[in-house]
Amino acid sequence: MVITKKISLSTKGECDMVNITPQVEQQLAEAGISNGVVTVFVAGSTAGVTTIEFEPGLTSDFQDIWQRIIPKNIPYNHDQRWGDGNGYSHVRASLLGASLVVPFSDKRLTLGTWQQIVLVDFDNRPRSRQIILQITGD
Amino acid sequence: MVITKKISLSTKGECDMVNITPQVEQQLAEAGISNGVVTVFVAGSTAGVTTIEFEPGLTSDFQDIWQRIIPKNIPYNHDQRWGDGNGYSHVRASLLGASLVVPFSDKRLTLGTWQQIVLVDFDNRPRSRQIILQITGD
Amino acid sequence: MVITKKISLSTKGECDMVNITPQVEQQLAEAGISNGVVTVFVAGSTAGVTTIEFEPGLTSDFQDIWQRIIPKNIPYNHDQRWGDGNGYSHVRASLLGASLVVPFSDKRLTLGTWQQIVLVDFDNRPRSRQIILQITGD
Repeated sequence: MVITKKISLSTKGECDMVNITPQVEQQLAEAGISNGVVTVFVAGSTAGVTTIEFEPGLTSDFQDIWQRIIPKNIPYNHDQRWGDGNGYSHVRASLLGASLVVPFSDKRLTLGTWQQIVLVDFDNRPRSRQIILQITGD
Repeated sequence: MVITKKISLSTKGECDMVNITPQVEQQLAEAGISNGVVTVFVAGSTAGVTTIEFEPGLTSDFQDIWQRIIPKNIPYNHDQRWGDGNGYSHVRASLLGASLVVPFSDKRLTLGTWQQIVLVDFDNRPRSRQIILQITGD
Repeated sequence: MVITKKISLSTKGECDMVNITPQVEQQLAEAGISNGVVTVFVAGSTAGVTTIEFEPGLTSDFQDIWQRIIPKNIPYNHDQRWGDGNGYSHVRASLLGASLVVPFSDKRLTLGTWQQIVLVDFDNRPRSRQIILQITGD
């Protein structure tokens, strides 16, 4: 059994992190499937999905680390070709990954106590995003 | 068809890497599903799941790289707020990712010859961990 | 319902990036499943799978970043033990990840407009690769 749900949201870009766990839980409750997996997938090339303990200290630490490993202020060939100025956003998104798969049992996600599902928007400007939840199971 | 299995184990923390392939294979053998995918998911915010050629040289190289890209000995806002001292553990775990999905055919995982499924525990102390295996297929 | 498909291809190694989206779309069209997820999994320990806007600027940027975060020209314990010279390839592959899961609806992948599925081969020599597509749904 497969149920497709979508989450639409707005972000501020620049590593903006949005906790989407409440929306995932709500869509799962409405899906009518008890056991299976939720595939959380972000459409687009400058955002990614992961899990984190969602608190302001870590949100800030996570942003700092991206500047450390894939800096904004170095030259990118993408920017020279296309002038978007978001080469760093693309590379960051490809490293983090566009998909996350979370099991659920008896309609409850198997997340740890403090573990939340987040969208990270790496683009260099505010964006509207669509996240696909593919809920499969029985 | 969905079968839920769990693996419980203890780790030493500090990038401790545990090869869980034998347990995944055993649980798959008991599940009674021939073709499908195993979703390997770790509950918790300071551990991740990936694949690697599991040999001591690479285990050590993998640990060294984390110190290079997300160092232990720099300030983290998480630590200033909560005093856990494991801000680096959280950020590392979010980058590596909590889920891995491995196909299987005729009850055999489609791993490469030397490719093993591993849990990496980034926390700054020994931990008990629970890994959820959601086995779906027919 | 589960359908297993395979993609075989040759790479040049050294961060060679291959756009496999056309093959995934073709295999999906032949699978006879309308809604579900495709698990894209690469067998082997020195390659990974992700999504990216596939254009030469970003391909080059992506390669540059790997040299920045997991350099080729530093010592690896794997190389001292086994003499393969590809310790960096293994560590890079474990960080990027071997699996990606992409939803589809009405036989169409839910990718963004410019978002492509790519194999990245980190090995230090040309390789033949096999990618498993596990297509599940109804």
